[in-house]
Amino acid sequence: MNMTASAVSVTIPAFDPAVTAVDSKAYRSGMARLPAGVNIITSTGPAGWCGFTASAVCSVTDDPPTLLVCMNRNSQSYDSIRQSGVLCVNTVSTEHEELSKRFAGSVKDMKQRFAGAEWTTLSTGAPVLVGANVAFDCRIVSEVKIGTHDALFCEVVAVSEAGACTGLVYFGRQFHNVAV
Amino acid sequence: MNMTASAVSVTIPAFDPAVTAVDSKAYRSGMARLPAGVNIITSTGPAGWCGFTASAVCSVTDDPPTLLVCMNRNSQSYDSIRQSGVLCVNTVSTEHEELSKRFAGSVKDMKQRFAGAEWTTLSTGAPVLVGANVAFDCRIVSEVKIGTHDALFCEVVAVSEAGACTGLVYFGRQFHNVAV
Repeated sequence: MNMTASAVSVTIPAFDPAVTAVDSKAYRSGMARLPAGVNIITSTGPAGWCGFTASAVCSVTDDPPTLLVCMNRNSQSYDSIRQSGVLCVNTVSTEHEELSKRFAGSVKDMKQRFAGAEWTTLSTGAPVLVGANVAFDCRIVSEVKIGTHDALFCEVVAVSEAGACTGLVYFGRQFHNVAV
Repeated sequence: MNMTASAVSVTIPAFDPAVTAVDSKAYRSGMARLPAGVNIITSTGPAGWCGFTASAVCSVTDDPPTLLVCMNRNSQSYDSIRQSGVLCVNTVSTEHEELSKRFAGSVKDMKQRFAGAEWTTLSTGAPVLVGANVAFDCRIVSEVKIGTHDALFCEVVAVSEAGACTGLVYFGRQFHNVAV
């Protein structure tokens, strides 16, 4: 796969170049105060299904329908996702808190992460969590490398919604439930 | 400002090129099911302060501390933000629901949007909402254009946290409160 886009540094006018970034600890402390939905990002490859939990997902545009997933290049799932070029963003329901912890790393073995939940597929072949509040089946169309992470821009080729609308939110280093 | 980065299309192996994106309506319906924090993005320029409400904000990496903001190029604030090269992400507290609606467009005049709330500044000069759950003062370091929107990669140069930790979540086209 040819995924070579990278961000270009820009020159900021009228801003003191001596001002430096905050330290990582202050940044993480601040980020814990930004509420975010909980998603299980899945993909498929020669080694089978893989996946990880991520809060760093956001909408980019509805024209063309595109979302963004940020992932650490050290992630166990990184190579499979890069090689397949596809992923599914499973935005979990309140019932999936335990499953989300498994995909966040409490379980290392990929087969065990997927065990005990029901999965299907849509267009790309990436695993779709049955009962997810919403699942976005995507192909990756471009990427940008920023420090330790890749920002993956993903075109949505299929979407499925659960009947109920309940959501799991990560905020203040805790899970919270929201429902409509 | 030299902000010329753009995403590069990639070739996806083993995936049917005839499969097309979902329609915008299905995408938006799905996105309403992804919980997101509510942020007021502010900046400053020759025309004065400007700002808009956004849920499309996410963490990219803590090394270097970088977050991402997606904004419509039709936004009233677009030119000021591009010209100044700085912005502040004010992640609002539960008390800021009405203010968030104003910056989402219920009030068009920029001066009126800022009226009735207390503001300060940190490093960049972009307005910082006093009492925001957390504020990330940023300079824009790169961007990617995707369809109607720009994805702005922002380095965090100052951060401030409120005493209490309460958050406003947008989910199912409604506001929800979370607290730690």
